[in-house]
Amino acid sequence: MSQRLNRLRAEMQRAGVAAVAVVPGSNLSYLTGLDMHINERLAVAFFPSAGQPVMVLPALEQPRAAAQAHFPMRFYPWTDSEGPHEALGRAMADLQLDGARLGVEYTAMRVLELRSIEQAAPEVVVGDATPILAALRMTKDAQELAAMRTAVHIVERTLEVAISQIKVGMTERALANIWDAAMREIGSAPSFGTIVASGPNAANPHHSNTDRAFQPGDLIIMDGGAVYQGYASDITRTVVLGEPSAEARRLYELVQAANAAGRAAARPGASGEQVDQAARTVITQGGYGAQFLHRTGHGLGLDVHEPPYMVAGNTAPLTLGMTFTIEPGIYVPGVGGVRIEDDVVITADGAESLTTFNRDLIVLQP
Amino acid sequence: MSQRLNRLRAEMQRAGVAAVAVVPGSNLSYLTGLDMHINERLAVAFFPSAGQPVMVLPALEQPRAAAQAHFPMRFYPWTDSEGPHEALGRAMADLQLDGARLGVEYTAMRVLELRSIEQAAPEVVVGDATPILAALRMTKDAQELAAMRTAVHIVERTLEVAISQIKVGMTERALANIWDAAMREIGSAPSFGTIVASGPNAANPHHSNTDRAFQPGDLIIMDGGAVYQGYASDITRTVVLGEPSAEARRLYELVQAANAAGRAAARPGASGEQVDQAARTVITQGGYGAQFLHRTGHGLGLDVHEPPYMVAGNTAPLTLGMTFTIEPGIYVPGVGGVRIEDDVVITADGAESLTTFNRDLIVLQP
Repeated sequence: MSQRLNRLRAEMQRAGVAAVAVVPGSNLSYLTGLDMHINERLAVAFFPSAGQPVMVLPALEQPRAAAQAHFPMRFYPWTDSEGPHEALGRAMADLQLDGARLGVEYTAMRVLELRSIEQAAPEVVVGDATPILAALRMTKDAQELAAMRTAVHIVERTLEVAISQIKVGMTERALANIWDAAMREIGSAPSFGTIVASGPNAANPHHSNTDRAFQPGDLIIMDGGAVYQGYASDITRTVVLGEPSAEARRLYELVQAANAAGRAAARPGASGEQVDQAARTVITQGGYGAQFLHRTGHGLGLDVHEPPYMVAGNTAPLTLGMTFTIEPGIYVPGVGGVRIEDDVVITADGAESLTTFNRDLIVLQP
Repeated sequence: MSQRLNRLRAEMQRAGVAAVAVVPGSNLSYLTGLDMHINERLAVAFFPSAGQPVMVLPALEQPRAAAQAHFPMRFYPWTDSEGPHEALGRAMADLQLDGARLGVEYTAMRVLELRSIEQAAPEVVVGDATPILAALRMTKDAQELAAMRTAVHIVERTLEVAISQIKVGMTERALANIWDAAMREIGSAPSFGTIVASGPNAANPHHSNTDRAFQPGDLIIMDGGAVYQGYASDITRTVVLGEPSAEARRLYELVQAANAAGRAAARPGASGEQVDQAARTVITQGGYGAQFLHRTGHGLGLDVHEPPYMVAGNTAPLTLGMTFTIEPGIYVPGVGGVRIEDDVVITADGAESLTTFNRDLIVLQP
């Protein structure tokens, strides 16, 4: 854990920031071991470039935080009747942050914390710490990878159970519940809201499950993940209930080829943009470029969506140990859709797919 | 739903803001019916003081948003390859927000959205819209109250099931799982992470469940909630496994009296501070004031924690239809703790407790 702090300090030095402020969530958990959730009571940890990390937090959270933290922190507790401002002011004064450069998490810190920080230290210069924290978290160590492999194993095993239950007349919600319950039964839990999108609903990549009942000929997109020791898996498979139409087969073959092309393009030195392009080219050349509505993938770890993103504009090179999804899809209004998603890790000479579930079209008997 | 928009406009006029910006979450759901979660892709709805609401959002979210929204909205979609900045700039220009006063949600909007808004309209004057939105949401209408009553019914029925399973040797985690599973079995779900704190662990008001096994004489705090149609319940009861010590009985009686005093103080015109004071005085006079570590309660609705707060400093009068918890507690390190939490609604002449679960000490046979 102190190794992570050392890496953080090296990244901070490179970026020229005096401290990084972190709110409850995955970055805090990664750096300290604290399992806290952001809520209406202000809590902010400060990691100075040298010296002990400090944390401003509700007094009633302190016992648990002190027990969970993997190293000593200096706490500035505040009670409900006092409010947080005095404690925050003391912490920032002790760290001499007024006038200094402070990195904050743009995609996690709220206006509440930002305004409180600006009030406590009006001359502080606030910038985005996301690149600093992403540099640490994108590449997974052996322990993190082991957790992700287990999360993948859980989601694949339970996906198999769920697929075996599919029949005509079952609803999207019922199938999602079966998958979720199977994950919970073995001590895991869904890492995000499980998606089951069937028939015409499969044309919406961000579908909300409905009570639509499956019909013969439906393409059914199943997108789910499991959590193990805080780490997420995230898989999508598309099955067909009965004989697929010629167009459904065509969509499936294109997406399957695009998924393979994306995985083949992922290697050290390639960029997220290149991986996206490799998958996208297959679909575009197949005539469905305008129906591939989203980026090809996202980083995966403590968060289900985290850097690096497989998207146009991301030209940073992929490096050893980075983990992300490859999930091309085609969505045709009125017809349906197909998405095939794998979780990969960058290895010395390419990318290993952690997910190994059958990628061929599974045709279920209606 | 348009009634809610009209109330929002009246509050905005009173506050003198040109528009309110809302990110995915409970305020957006309340105002529009949209069920979206905040993620790394920027999405912001703008509610101008006059004219149609607009929303900047990922293109792949638009079909679902258009289907869910309870009234027409003007969408400014952006794709992964474009990024959000151009769409946000056009939306804010069309609304003529540069130089105008804009309210944002301090406890929900992130630095990401704030900085993007400031970049799109450098002269915009940003303030906290929390009071505006809280004014709408604090008082529940009949439909909301009906949903909350059902959420209370679910959590009480399943709490009874869970309590009936308690025995020596069972772990905190196992009991929490039993309660959670019972909620899920009847189509609900926990509204937050269920807390089971036993023996010495009960001295920590924000305990994380462990594998500690129950022992004879344990005080066991059970704090959980259910969700129904988006609305939360939140109840705490403390039971004892076998004969309680004299001190445990004393703690229980004080907390029970404090809970009753808090409920009796809750009525139209009283303040959150007064409710807090009424409960706190009982415990302070009983000699445990320093062991009552938190405020007496929080508002409850679409969010598990929302205004109004029963806390020192909140001098605003309670009004008809406001819903909140009353949950005094005493926490004695090394000994244990007691908390008794009810959900109440302000009525014409007082407060009705939605939770009616037995508040007397339940002594279980070990």
